[in-house]
Amino acid sequence: MLGIPALERLLHEIGQLPGVGPKTAQRLVHYILKKGLYSQNLREALLEVEETISFCTSCFSYTERVKPICHYCSNPKRRDDLFCVVEEPENIAQIDASGSFDGRFHVLHGVISPLEGRSPDDLKIKELIERIDRYQELHPQSTVEVILALDSDLEGDTTMLYLAKVLSIRDGVRVSRLAQGVPIGSHLDFVDQRTISRALENRVTL
Amino acid sequence: MLGIPALERLLHEIGQLPGVGPKTAQRLVHYILKKGLYSQNLREALLEVEETISFCTSCFSYTERVKPICHYCSNPKRRDDLFCVVEEPENIAQIDASGSFDGRFHVLHGVISPLEGRSPDDLKIKELIERIDRYQELHPQSTVEVILALDSDLEGDTTMLYLAKVLSIRDGVRVSRLAQGVPIGSHLDFVDQRTISRALENRVTL
Repeated sequence: MLGIPALERLLHEIGQLPGVGPKTAQRLVHYILKKGLYSQNLREALLEVEETISFCTSCFSYTERVKPICHYCSNPKRRDDLFCVVEEPENIAQIDASGSFDGRFHVLHGVISPLEGRSPDDLKIKELIERIDRYQELHPQSTVEVILALDSDLEGDTTMLYLAKVLSIRDGVRVSRLAQGVPIGSHLDFVDQRTISRALENRVTL
Repeated sequence: MLGIPALERLLHEIGQLPGVGPKTAQRLVHYILKKGLYSQNLREALLEVEETISFCTSCFSYTERVKPICHYCSNPKRRDDLFCVVEEPENIAQIDASGSFDGRFHVLHGVISPLEGRSPDDLKIKELIERIDRYQELHPQSTVEVILALDSDLEGDTTMLYLAKVLSIRDGVRVSRLAQGVPIGSHLDFVDQRTISRALENRVTL
């Protein structure tokens, strides 16, 4: 880039970002060069995140290092007998925004993927079972529900089947998954056949 | 974002980048959080650019601070009697990549824009004239050509007309602009009518 190694290096780093191709990377680097203070502000924001963010010791989403238990796990208004299992921390915000879930989240940090060498032991499954056990020790005879909210692709489905097997053998644990069907507001023309087939199977009596 | 101010701040900074909407910004922040070393590498690359890059004192493109004259201006193989005037440093790479220009570049840093309050005095026009004068002092009786390679929109056209007026009254200065016509490889169906009209006016005898 203009024969300047420092610009080449920045171009390389910016080009690592997901969805940023070579043309976009060039545009972003030129934006950074043009906006005097922006680069410094961005560096400070990055440093603050590096220095202050860690994983919640309960759900394994992100939290501030000074608060080992995250925002969601420390909220006393949320139910303790309902868990929503997600793949990554980024899935939490969307489920929370729906306003239809008032339990606790649990982040697996991945899904089972033989191709990428990720087995159940690499996920936060043991930690999920420990959370359920801890709740049931404090509340004997109670029932816990675990909602599996993973992507419904091959790896997500495999992981959900595995978790269902592991969890449902335990006493007082119900396992469910998100309903599959026609998205609200969508035209049937644009919905794929497998989804329609699933929506027919799971039809709801009115 | 997950109720964490440091993440909100990074989201805000990332969201400033051109073409990055709220959803993309979220995705980028999660990528940065996930890739351990990336944030540090990006910070270092930004810092290196902040500390080492400045403007070329001749053409006003970017250069390293230790080399006040840029890569293009210091290249002895380029012609000194041919200038290509561009709006921003990012335009240089594309013209250079065409392989059809072996003269010197000159960056105006903007175009005349009454709406944005940019007058000719805010652009590097005086500096362009000084460069031409310097060449002509060393090479009396010589002719200099200035190619105006600005965008052909209202502001670009205005700026080119202004420059043509200012430069062509000088002795031994020829002013030209990029040819306008049908892009190579394009289908006529997809070319707009003004471009076809211009391509007809400027038709080339075979």
